[in-house]
Amino acid sequence: MDAQPDDTATAARRPRGRPRKSATPVDTRGLIVKAAGAEFQAVGYDAASVRAIARRAGVDAALVHHYFESKADLFAATVHVPVRPDRVLAQVLAGPRDEIGVNLVRGVVVALDDPKAGRRVIRLLHTALGQEFAATLLRQFVTHELLARLATALGGDDAETRASFAASQMVGLIVARYGVRLEPLASASADAVAHTVGPVVQWYLTGSTPLDTSEHIGE
Amino acid sequence: MDAQPDDTATAARRPRGRPRKSATPVDTRGLIVKAAGAEFQAVGYDAASVRAIARRAGVDAALVHHYFESKADLFAATVHVPVRPDRVLAQVLAGPRDEIGVNLVRGVVVALDDPKAGRRVIRLLHTALGQEFAATLLRQFVTHELLARLATALGGDDAETRASFAASQMVGLIVARYGVRLEPLASASADAVAHTVGPVVQWYLTGSTPLDTSEHIGE
Repeated sequence: MDAQPDDTATAARRPRGRPRKSATPVDTRGLIVKAAGAEFQAVGYDAASVRAIARRAGVDAALVHHYFESKADLFAATVHVPVRPDRVLAQVLAGPRDEIGVNLVRGVVVALDDPKAGRRVIRLLHTALGQEFAATLLRQFVTHELLARLATALGGDDAETRASFAASQMVGLIVARYGVRLEPLASASADAVAHTVGPVVQWYLTGSTPLDTSEHIGE
Repeated sequence: MDAQPDDTATAARRPRGRPRKSATPVDTRGLIVKAAGAEFQAVGYDAASVRAIARRAGVDAALVHHYFESKADLFAATVHVPVRPDRVLAQVLAGPRDEIGVNLVRGVVVALDDPKAGRRVIRLLHTALGQEFAATLLRQFVTHELLARLATALGGDDAETRASFAASQMVGLIVARYGVRLEPLASASADAVAHTVGPVVQWYLTGSTPLDTSEHIGE
């Protein structure tokens, strides 16, 4: 980047009454989010890189990393979702293995019971169900940032299958509680939901019985 | 209704080259579907009646019943969904109680694996997640035509709670398989899905363990 011109010199050349360009605060973060959105639109989640997003925004990659920890962070910002599911998952995976289900459900429900967060996630799903490209973007994010991590933590040949079935229950819980608002589920306490849906998610992830037909899967 | 004028007489009065009004086939069924859509929009699913829909369409209620068996039938027609979930449910409930879960999942998956049917249901969910009114309409339909029937068949104090949790898994399966298309779930055979998700739905509906916190629900 060129060095900034001396402020006084700029002021001297500037006609009276016109605002100083250098005084206009540049929303660098906003610029990066916009570039990230355009890059995700252009190449999808998997193929997008922080480098390419930086190039699109006309900034250094280091500056992108100053504002955003990761590509997942950038994605969350572009879809305006105030909850970071990959962080909730990382926290849960750091806890006891036999509490993954209940902690995952509780973490998601507590986060989305915030009305703004719930609305944003439903809006994201609404877009994904209406546009092929948005569905692909969401699928890539969920697969790469959530299911792959979950499968790695679980281990085993059928870990990806288990993760995708668990995800179906999580997404259904979100749609039923915050989107269609089916009762009594929609008004149940976060604790009751965690203790009812948690065992199901746990069963998908680590149970021995429910997936005994996994040899049929992906034939 | 007035008697139709004599065909020959009409033809005699009609200027040459103009189409005969009486020969234009009236799409009575289409007229009724349109009226039903307007009535659902105006008052919601629960408050809409076949009588009011007939009045809106300018036809006799008996004529509505000639084309449509029930209000649920009319709703399915207005949202262009070629699958009748209430019929699938009725069939499943007529079978063995301990196979409700697996039969329900298989019935829904087999029906929605038809690409047109799958797309239509995703479109319906897309609309419901984007418009408050559409969400209410879908909630009323699901609650009245599916969950209430399921709860009645199950019996017990917590039947409605059980039904709503089972519904969350069903809707999540639909969104994950046909909307976001999470793998390997999206490509798994109908049989594998039925044998993996079926036990979960069964567990919600009739299991003794998963709902042992139901006293928290609806407090």
